[in-house]
Amino acid sequence: MKLTFLGTSAGAPTRHRNVTAVALQLPQRSSCWLFDCGEGTQHQFLRAPHLRLSQIEKVFITHMHGDHLFGLPGLLATRSMQSGCETPVTVFGPEGVGAFVRHALELSGSQLQYPLEVRTVDEGVVCEDTQVRVTCALLTHRVPSWGYAVEEHIQPGRFDVERARALGIPEGPLYGRLKSGETITLPDGRIVRGTDLTGPPRPGRKIVICGDTIFSPASVRLARGADLLVHEATHLEEDLPLARRALHSTARMAAEVARQAGVRRLYLTHFSARYEGEGARLDALLEEARAVFPDTELARDFLSVEVPPREPGSINPAD
Amino acid sequence: MKLTFLGTSAGAPTRHRNVTAVALQLPQRSSCWLFDCGEGTQHQFLRAPHLRLSQIEKVFITHMHGDHLFGLPGLLATRSMQSGCETPVTVFGPEGVGAFVRHALELSGSQLQYPLEVRTVDEGVVCEDTQVRVTCALLTHRVPSWGYAVEEHIQPGRFDVERARALGIPEGPLYGRLKSGETITLPDGRIVRGTDLTGPPRPGRKIVICGDTIFSPASVRLARGADLLVHEATHLEEDLPLARRALHSTARMAAEVARQAGVRRLYLTHFSARYEGEGARLDALLEEARAVFPDTELARDFLSVEVPPREPGSINPAD
Repeated sequence: MKLTFLGTSAGAPTRHRNVTAVALQLPQRSSCWLFDCGEGTQHQFLRAPHLRLSQIEKVFITHMHGDHLFGLPGLLATRSMQSGCETPVTVFGPEGVGAFVRHALELSGSQLQYPLEVRTVDEGVVCEDTQVRVTCALLTHRVPSWGYAVEEHIQPGRFDVERARALGIPEGPLYGRLKSGETITLPDGRIVRGTDLTGPPRPGRKIVICGDTIFSPASVRLARGADLLVHEATHLEEDLPLARRALHSTARMAAEVARQAGVRRLYLTHFSARYEGEGARLDALLEEARAVFPDTELARDFLSVEVPPREPGSINPAD
Repeated sequence: MKLTFLGTSAGAPTRHRNVTAVALQLPQRSSCWLFDCGEGTQHQFLRAPHLRLSQIEKVFITHMHGDHLFGLPGLLATRSMQSGCETPVTVFGPEGVGAFVRHALELSGSQLQYPLEVRTVDEGVVCEDTQVRVTCALLTHRVPSWGYAVEEHIQPGRFDVERARALGIPEGPLYGRLKSGETITLPDGRIVRGTDLTGPPRPGRKIVICGDTIFSPASVRLARGADLLVHEATHLEEDLPLARRALHSTARMAAEVARQAGVRRLYLTHFSARYEGEGARLDALLEEARAVFPDTELARDFLSVEVPPREPGSINPAD
């Protein structure tokens, strides 16, 4: 699982940070999921050589503020102009996101060359397939703002091909049946149990991406045991009144969520422009968070983060 | 009058060109007018140090296609977050632009800190003040697409301060009355005619910015005698079928408009991405146009063009 930050500025773009978007690439599939789509996200795709609009399969919008949303009509329309972009796209988001997208596309006469579906999310499971499940939780912001958790299902253990060969099991469909744990009878009458050839199952990874929010117990519950938490840190604690007024988080609040949820790593994002251009101030954000949760990093545009598979049998202390 | 191209790509952004926007700065006022507002126009303002969102006073939208429009809600919202941006903004454009802007701002909970007015344009005069008049004409595209002509009123001739001083006329309000052509009686009884102290009036400048269109007689009429014409040249003549299908212009068509309208200079813009990255192909666009109208240039993002005042008494041959 690989996360790429495409925008890390709060409210408005700066010269070095665009407004919010995060791309997620899941293993063993070429598609990409997008979390939020601030204005200029399609421009950021042009500058991220490992990402293509054609790969986008799902878009998750956290909340309806423009800096998380206004890039969506343009991104969908440009995707439609590119060859090889006939695969469907599903947009998940709060009430209103469907009306916004439909209205913008209709008024601009944009006819998409691929099926587009928009689904309003609600507390709980958002979507699920054979590989992952996405759930969401309502956070605390001036408008309904959602956090999304992407959780891999438990991964089957590694199949021991060497041992299967040594046992003289012919390669082919039998391997698949053994991998899935079946017990089979070989042509020579021997009985082989798949579970004997397969290592212990590996826990799936968990990535949580929170929308704009002040500190919220819902963020803690959603992020419980995550390998990676992306949380906004719009302000420094010294600007707490600003954070409180706009229901944004300070760096300390984000770190407190990470600590209480027992995540492995925290990435801070969505920085107020007031801390940019003065390196020391962004460093102060990082320091403030690390004092509470040491495994904290600052996101920046185009930073890619790999989330490695969990070790077989490993259990996150917070699970 | 100074024009700055902020986006010169057709349909979608490329790595080097954003989608359409042109900023116009009028003399003797700090405000700036914007023609079209493709996605990412607010980002381009960040990279154009002589332009600020606070300066924007009027926005003219040529047509409702997303690559000319989708940057508008974000630009208006970001302008509202900046200090010193309380001055009103008026958006002029085709039917639908008001609904688009209102809908996007409402759904995103954007409350502007300045008055915003949206006016639907129609053939003829769009707005007028003591300095300039803006008119528009309907061109030929897949959706209603407008061209805008900005014409300065006739400028009063230069007031000869030296001569006024030599005549012993006391500096002060009398100068203003003489400048405006009045005849005055001095305290010593002498009669002085303002017209004797003022040079011949200077014709105003004219700038014409056309929206997307295939060759149209309306463009020729609108651009008649302009100092500067901005016209799309999406395609090369060799791709005429593409231009015809989408009702876009070839470089030759744009040059033909400039030639028939007798303009002074033509700037081509809105290039298809198919000609970019291969320098020779954009050169081919320029050559194709220059064969018909030699005073042609290619626009590029952040190119600024000064339109100098006309000489007193000068008349453009096409006027």
